[in-house]
Amino acid sequence: MEVRKKHKSFGGESVFASHSSHATSTTMSFSYFKPQEEVDSAIIWLSGLTCTEENFITKAGVQSLLAGTKTMIICPDTSPRGLDIEGADESYDFGSGASFYVNATQAPYRENYQMDDYITKDIVSLIKEEFGIGKISIMGHSMGGHGALVLGLRNPEVFRCISAFSPIVNPMNCDWGKKALKGYLGEDQSSWKEYDACELIKSGKKHDQTILIHQGLADEFYPSQLLTENLEEFCKEAGQELQCQKREGYDHSYYFISTFLNDHIQHHLKYLK
Amino acid sequence: MEVRKKHKSFGGESVFASHSSHATSTTMSFSYFKPQEEVDSAIIWLSGLTCTEENFITKAGVQSLLAGTKTMIICPDTSPRGLDIEGADESYDFGSGASFYVNATQAPYRENYQMDDYITKDIVSLIKEEFGIGKISIMGHSMGGHGALVLGLRNPEVFRCISAFSPIVNPMNCDWGKKALKGYLGEDQSSWKEYDACELIKSGKKHDQTILIHQGLADEFYPSQLLTENLEEFCKEAGQELQCQKREGYDHSYYFISTFLNDHIQHHLKYLK
Repeated sequence: MEVRKKHKSFGGESVFASHSSHATSTTMSFSYFKPQEEVDSAIIWLSGLTCTEENFITKAGVQSLLAGTKTMIICPDTSPRGLDIEGADESYDFGSGASFYVNATQAPYRENYQMDDYITKDIVSLIKEEFGIGKISIMGHSMGGHGALVLGLRNPEVFRCISAFSPIVNPMNCDWGKKALKGYLGEDQSSWKEYDACELIKSGKKHDQTILIHQGLADEFYPSQLLTENLEEFCKEAGQELQCQKREGYDHSYYFISTFLNDHIQHHLKYLK
Repeated sequence: MEVRKKHKSFGGESVFASHSSHATSTTMSFSYFKPQEEVDSAIIWLSGLTCTEENFITKAGVQSLLAGTKTMIICPDTSPRGLDIEGADESYDFGSGASFYVNATQAPYRENYQMDDYITKDIVSLIKEEFGIGKISIMGHSMGGHGALVLGLRNPEVFRCISAFSPIVNPMNCDWGKKALKGYLGEDQSSWKEYDACELIKSGKKHDQTILIHQGLADEFYPSQLLTENLEEFCKEAGQELQCQKREGYDHSYYFISTFLNDHIQHHLKYLK
C-alpha cells in the first residue's frame, strides 16, 4: 500500500492510497477514513458511475459520523484505470468509472475488469492484512449500490451487513445494466443473473441481516434505471428482510446521501459490533 | 435571482443560483443552504484561492450543522468570471478565483473586480430582499478568511460576528497578498492597508465580538503566507478579542475545515440569535 495523500480529520485520518491488485493486474486507487480510535471493523463503500475513490470521502461527511467509533470506511475506485482499451473512455456508463463490479468474461475487458474479485478478494485482504480487521460490511450508491447488493448477497459470510443508496437493483432490465452486462459478460443472459440483485434473491441467495435501502423520490433515474420496486417484490416473495426508505423530494446526488448516511452508518455499526 | 440547481438536503435545500451584480457588472454565481425552518439570519462564507461557489457547499458538511436552526449560509463565487481580461486566467493566485475581495482601482480589473462592494452591498441586499433577513455574519477560509476579517472589521455594523479558517491575516507581508494588492490596487502601499486585517486592527478598527480563528499547524502555507501570529500580536495590543485555536496535524484543506466547522457555526449562532 502506497499512501499518496493524508489529511487529519476529526482526530482521525482521511487517506488516499494505491496498491497493486492481483485481480485487475493494475495499480488501483482507494481512499479511506480511519478514526483516531483503534479500529476493529471496516465498511466498504462502492461508488457509482463516473466516480473515483475521491467522491465519497470528500463529499459525504462520513468522517464526523465515524469519529469516536472503532470502524473505518474504505472507498475503492470504480474501475481499473490507465489501460489502453479502445472505447473504454468514450461513455460515462461503460468502461472507465463504470465497472459494475463484475468479473468480465469478454475481450478486451476480461484481462483487467475483474472487479468482483478485486473487491471481495484484494480489498478484503487489504483490510485484513493492512489494518488487522476481520469484521467487514458493504454499502454503496447507484452502480455501487448494485455492487454492494450483489457482492453482499453472493458473499454473506464475508460481509456482515449490506445497505445501498439509490441502487440499480435489476440491471438486466434497465439500459445502464443491459449495456454493461452485455459488454462485460457477453450475449448469454444466463451469466448476467449472477450480477443482478433481483435474480440472486429469486435464486435463493439471502442475507441474514436486514438490507437497508434509501431511495429519493425526486431521483432523476428513478424508477427507470433503478427499478427499486422489483427488489421489494422479490425480497418479499423470498423472505429477505428489506427496509426500503423512500424519501420525497430527494434526488440522486451526494446531498441525498449525506442526509441519510448516518442511518446507514448506525445500521452497519449494529452488525459490526 | 436565477436558480440553476436545487438539491433537497437535511430537510432543507442546497441551491446553486446566479444574479446580476451592480458592483461587478457581471452575472455572479453563488450557492446557499437554507434549512427547512423559517430563517431569520444568514452567514456569508467566503472561499479561498481557486474555489468557486461550489467547494464549500459540497465539501464542508455544513448542511447537517444548520439543519434545525433558523440560519442559512450563502457562498459567493471568489471573483467575477467570463471576462476577457488578458492574463486573468493565467495564475491560480491572481485574477479569476483570486479576487482577494477588494475593490480594484487598477486597469483592467477596476471595471469588474469590485468584490468588496459585491459582498458588502450586492450579497447583503440579496440576503435582505430575497430572504427577508437582516442579521448577517461572515466567515471564510484562507483568502476568504482574509475577506471575512477585512470586510467584517470595516463593516462591524453589517456583520455581527467574524470567524476564519487559516486566514491570510497580513497580506501586505506575504507573497500571495503582495501580488494581489499590487495588481488590484497599484504600487502605492498606503491603499493596501484598507485590505489588511493587521493594518486595520493597528489603525483602530474593532469588532465588538470575539473573532474566532482556527489554524492547522501542519498547514503547508503556515506561517509563510498566513502570518497568523501577526494578527494575534496586533489584536493583543489593540484590545481586540481574538480566539485563535491552533491545531496539531491539521492542514489547509476542507478536511480541516469540516472538522472544526461546528465550532464556528456555534460561535456565529450565538451572535445571530
